[in-house]
Amino acid sequence: MTRSPILVITTGGTIDKQYFDALSEYKISDSVIEQLLATARVKHPFRVVELMRKDSLELTEADRDLIAATIAAAPEKRVVITHGTDTMTDTAKALAHLKDRTIVLAGALAPARFKESDAPFNLGMAFACCQAAQPGVWITMNGTVFDGLAVRKDREAGAFVSI
Amino acid sequence: MTRSPILVITTGGTIDKQYFDALSEYKISDSVIEQLLATARVKHPFRVVELMRKDSLELTEADRDLIAATIAAAPEKRVVITHGTDTMTDTAKALAHLKDRTIVLAGALAPARFKESDAPFNLGMAFACCQAAQPGVWITMNGTVFDGLAVRKDREAGAFVSI
Amino acid sequence: MTRSPILVITTGGTIDKQYFDALSEYKISDSVIEQLLATARVKHPFRVVELMRKDSLELTEADRDLIAATIAAAPEKRVVITHGTDTMTDTAKALAHLKDRTIVLAGALAPARFKESDAPFNLGMAFACCQAAQPGVWITMNGTVFDGLAVRKDREAGAFVSI
Amino acid sequence: MTRSPILVITTGGTIDKQYFDALSEYKISDSVIEQLLATARVKHPFRVVELMRKDSLELTEADRDLIAATIAAAPEKRVVITHGTDTMTDTAKALAHLKDRTIVLAGALAPARFKESDAPFNLGMAFACCQAAQPGVWITMNGTVFDGLAVRKDREAGAFVSI
Repeated sequence: MTRSPILVITTGGTIDKQYFDALSEYKISDSVIEQLLATARVKHPFRVVELMRKDSLELTEADRDLIAATIAAAPEKRVVITHGTDTMTDTAKALAHLKDRTIVLAGALAPARFKESDAPFNLGMAFACCQAAQPGVWITMNGTVFDGLAVRKDREAGAFVSI
Repeated sequence: MTRSPILVITTGGTIDKQYFDALSEYKISDSVIEQLLATARVKHPFRVVELMRKDSLELTEADRDLIAATIAAAPEKRVVITHGTDTMTDTAKALAHLKDRTIVLAGALAPARFKESDAPFNLGMAFACCQAAQPGVWITMNGTVFDGLAVRKDREAGAFVSI
Repeated sequence: MTRSPILVITTGGTIDKQYFDALSEYKISDSVIEQLLATARVKHPFRVVELMRKDSLELTEADRDLIAATIAAAPEKRVVITHGTDTMTDTAKALAHLKDRTIVLAGALAPARFKESDAPFNLGMAFACCQAAQPGVWITMNGTVFDGLAVRKDREAGAFVSI
Repeated sequence: MTRSPILVITTGGTIDKQYFDALSEYKISDSVIEQLLATARVKHPFRVVELMRKDSLELTEADRDLIAATIAAAPEKRVVITHGTDTMTDTAKALAHLKDRTIVLAGALAPARFKESDAPFNLGMAFACCQAAQPGVWITMNGTVFDGLAVRKDREAGAFVSI
């Protein structure tokens, strides 16, 4: 394992959701990713790009093109993307053409600002996976490293499962 | 990636430290690992063995032999060990003879019961690493997947560094 | 101060909001009040009545009559009510006719399930106020014990202020 | 209730304990009180004086004299003191001669930096008590407003009880 730098792209999703009392609403806020990495005492070199703040159901083809273009233009070979869970697998497919990169998508089923959230564990999985796995697109959710092209979200179960 | 089951061995360390008011002390308690995995909504098959509850400075050669024997006797090929950080690298060396297993050691610099702890992130890294990495002994701390035989804890910096 | 028992009535509000991934929504869930009191190691005698689970903007006159009737029928002279913040002062007025009771309304501007919430502090204020204050209706928010009939929520400031 | 300002004196104790990995020890750190008050969104006027950082078993008569002198010299009539629990009642007695002040002592049985701590609830109780109670010395622990001169810590039960 070399300590090659990691590009972290944030796109929004539940992981970054905040509660706004003024609206009695629950919206995507400024990203908590840098704070999660500080709490985890990460010393590994990384760079965060806050690319968009969207619920993943609102992501367009243009958004996915932008994510792909950002990765293609980056010097880093290891990439973590934080992403809403509902269309995470669509984005995985849209990035499959990028060769020679280890790309890992992760998100959370409960916002990172909650006391009980899967966010730090999933982000940790993504950090390790992009260092340890072969080039390709991976999804790290529910404790499993999934092939990003062979997984779906089982919405009722609230969990990702292999296909 | 197959969904092969993961053996989780707990040995104690800061990650499991609790504060006991009756003693005004801070001691290793019943392990928080199962709770961390529940919060992370882990659906991946795993089995937890609480092997010992020790500060890693108190671990003996006999303790390390027991850890090795437990792994050697286990059906799982993927192993996560939670461990105090001070002698984590000693245990890594003591497990290096175990072939055909992907063994990952992880711990925490702040107890998991703290609001701000690296425990869930590090445990997530270990879960992903034991699935994605080649057989061998690894350490996942400070955001990096380290070769378990080429890393040391820099006590003053409070961080692991490659050697 | 006698250790006279406290009646805790929950009505919903932000304090009890939970995030539901299946709906990508944020709804009032089973109350966290008992858990907050356990975390606070409360040994004082209390009884919790989960009366309703509503955003306070949805509370009707009938709901407020029910809250008043529940208090009037209760043996406890000290009452804590958890309540959404938007119409907390309306409920305070609707309870003003109840004499010989020390009634305290409290809620939260961030859900109790968040890492950073005002919920435990505000609930602690309410517990102390119902023991230490004269009979009447009080609101404990933003660090102040307010006369429940002389306070309003400044929605833009996200804070309660005296009037 | 007037919005008269509150003096907050910190003296150390479990509430402010932090874990230091470099020593594998658990020591009193810079106070978390200001952070707890920010999380609680306190708008009430207050002033924090970090007077000492001691385990309450280490407090001397001179320390208690200093606490009393600090209060006697302060313009605020309402005072909250955060304090270790083991000798909290001794300090209460040492402050009993201060008339015309409402003084409330509070601490925590688990450090405020823990996910599950009684610190914010107890601090909320103290804030409300110093506003709502008559002049005198009070202790707010375990959900009860205690007369500071008629309470003891039951160390085995981990709770304060009236005497």
